[in-house]
Amino acid sequence: MAYRFVYRRTVAFSDTDLAGIVHFSRFFLYMEDCEHAFYRAEDESVHKMSDGDGGWVGWPRVHVSCDYRKPIRFEDELEIELLVARVGTKTIDYRFKFRRVEDEGFTAVASGKALVACVRCKEGVMEAVEIPQAIREKIEQAPEGELKKFTD
Amino acid sequence: MAYRFVYRRTVAFSDTDLAGIVHFSRFFLYMEDCEHAFYRAEDESVHKMSDGDGGWVGWPRVHVSCDYRKPIRFEDELEIELLVARVGTKTIDYRFKFRRVEDEGFTAVASGKALVACVRCKEGVMEAVEIPQAIREKIEQAPEGELKKFTD
Amino acid sequence: MAYRFVYRRTVAFSDTDLAGIVHFSRFFLYMEDCEHAFYRAEDESVHKMSDGDGGWVGWPRVHVSCDYRKPIRFEDELEIELLVARVGTKTIDYRFKFRRVEDEGFTAVASGKALVACVRCKEGVMEAVEIPQAIREKIEQAPEGELKKFTD
Amino acid sequence: MAYRFVYRRTVAFSDTDLAGIVHFSRFFLYMEDCEHAFYRAEDESVHKMSDGDGGWVGWPRVHVSCDYRKPIRFEDELEIELLVARVGTKTIDYRFKFRRVEDEGFTAVASGKALVACVRCKEGVMEAVEIPQAIREKIEQAPEGELKKFTD
Repeated sequence: MAYRFVYRRTVAFSDTDLAGIVHFSRFFLYMEDCEHAFYRAEDESVHKMSDGDGGWVGWPRVHVSCDYRKPIRFEDELEIELLVARVGTKTIDYRFKFRRVEDEGFTAVASGKALVACVRCKEGVMEAVEIPQAIREKIEQAPEGELKKFTD
Repeated sequence: MAYRFVYRRTVAFSDTDLAGIVHFSRFFLYMEDCEHAFYRAEDESVHKMSDGDGGWVGWPRVHVSCDYRKPIRFEDELEIELLVARVGTKTIDYRFKFRRVEDEGFTAVASGKALVACVRCKEGVMEAVEIPQAIREKIEQAPEGELKKFTD
Repeated sequence: MAYRFVYRRTVAFSDTDLAGIVHFSRFFLYMEDCEHAFYRAEDESVHKMSDGDGGWVGWPRVHVSCDYRKPIRFEDELEIELLVARVGTKTIDYRFKFRRVEDEGFTAVASGKALVACVRCKEGVMEAVEIPQAIREKIEQAPEGELKKFTD
Repeated sequence: MAYRFVYRRTVAFSDTDLAGIVHFSRFFLYMEDCEHAFYRAEDESVHKMSDGDGGWVGWPRVHVSCDYRKPIRFEDELEIELLVARVGTKTIDYRFKFRRVEDEGFTAVASGKALVACVRCKEGVMEAVEIPQAIREKIEQAPEGELKKFTD
């Protein structure tokens, strides 16, 4: 059972824009990549989950947000931390923190949220479903104290 | 003076992901493109604004969010509506609504927010500044009733 | 029957990189969007083409290339011209020219190629197939003289 | 002195399109990221290279191409190999091979090219320049036999 994950990446050239900084929309790609790496670390794949009946289980976003504190740049080293704020019946609520890795320590650069819904997709149709038991056995909600500390 | 803008676009193939729908991060590109088209309609360019002193004025995001109600797909026709919720001293707060254009009417698919800060960029350094008068003369805050109607 | 198409677009902020110019990879998105707009103008959609048997017909790329002559920038107005260089049994060979729209005339900025194959996709498997008759009736090869003029 | 580099990455969800495979344009981002990682391995950064005179040295593309042999999918593990085909006075010509990492060995999925020019950028103006000596001391041309083997 896990509720926390840390993921590193180097900022790519194509993530920047003419202001010389990472385009704000890329933070959402970083969050998603972090979430998927978290799944893989738990021996699951976001994508390959068959529903055992010709369909598959996916996680479209219901709500996302991001707060930007400092700009980041090409070749910055980032650490992205994920916390599972809540596991509901059909949704998971993630929190993210972005830190730039410095020679000495870290600088907080942004924080984000993603509320994702479990859906079953079959023949192009999506339907909200309960989170499968296999997932529930691996992903748990952070203890309240952890969540408080994370979001403070 | 303007506080509202409507912008249309057709969903591109490269905006979709393997779930067969538009990737959630693309909604932020649509919002940004709508904001820039709004500026151009007001005879400004987001980018080309010189500060008259070797630097330029830009609008990095402080906070963004999006709420997703229905998936959209390749070649869907979208209408994106922007409303200026607030013009502060150094920030502008935008609201967005996404509608899919149907044969008869529209379907609401998503809504979003972007709080942007006015910064002056010179030699790679960004500094928050007051919104230039030239912008203030063109962009105004929506009347309270309009905002209420928009976000309800 | 058509073998030529012209498509306009304004360069988006998120298409730029820290060098202040449009990222080279975006030219391929512009070519693809132009190709799809060409299809739509011919009353077809690249995507929605059912094969009448539970699968669908798609056009993955076999080869693409781009030659860059001049950089383009945010809010530049682009004209992209497509020419059908060859319609084979299972492939179509497109040529593209990129021009920046100036106050007086145009500046040639880049040119590109895309060789696309017709495939049938069913249950995640792709198989090269002959181009459907409905497409052949709408898309034709440019006369040799036109192609020569285009690529000179 | 180096003329070869190997770089690994996992395919991201946002790299896929509705056909369920990686969008063809993403291969160019993978090539670019590989090239930049090659530079970093040689203790250089593509971006941060000052020209010692208020400008900086960059590497815009003159020509790129990609040949696609097999589709790749979300969470595939890729190995991208770079070879320096030629170091000219003002340009470097790179070759790339893409392999999917399998349980046993590799599958060749694509190959690419990028001809990049050395430019000096100052105050938004780009000018082609000779490749700086510091780069020449680190990046060399592959021996002819190696290039032949690579591209066969």
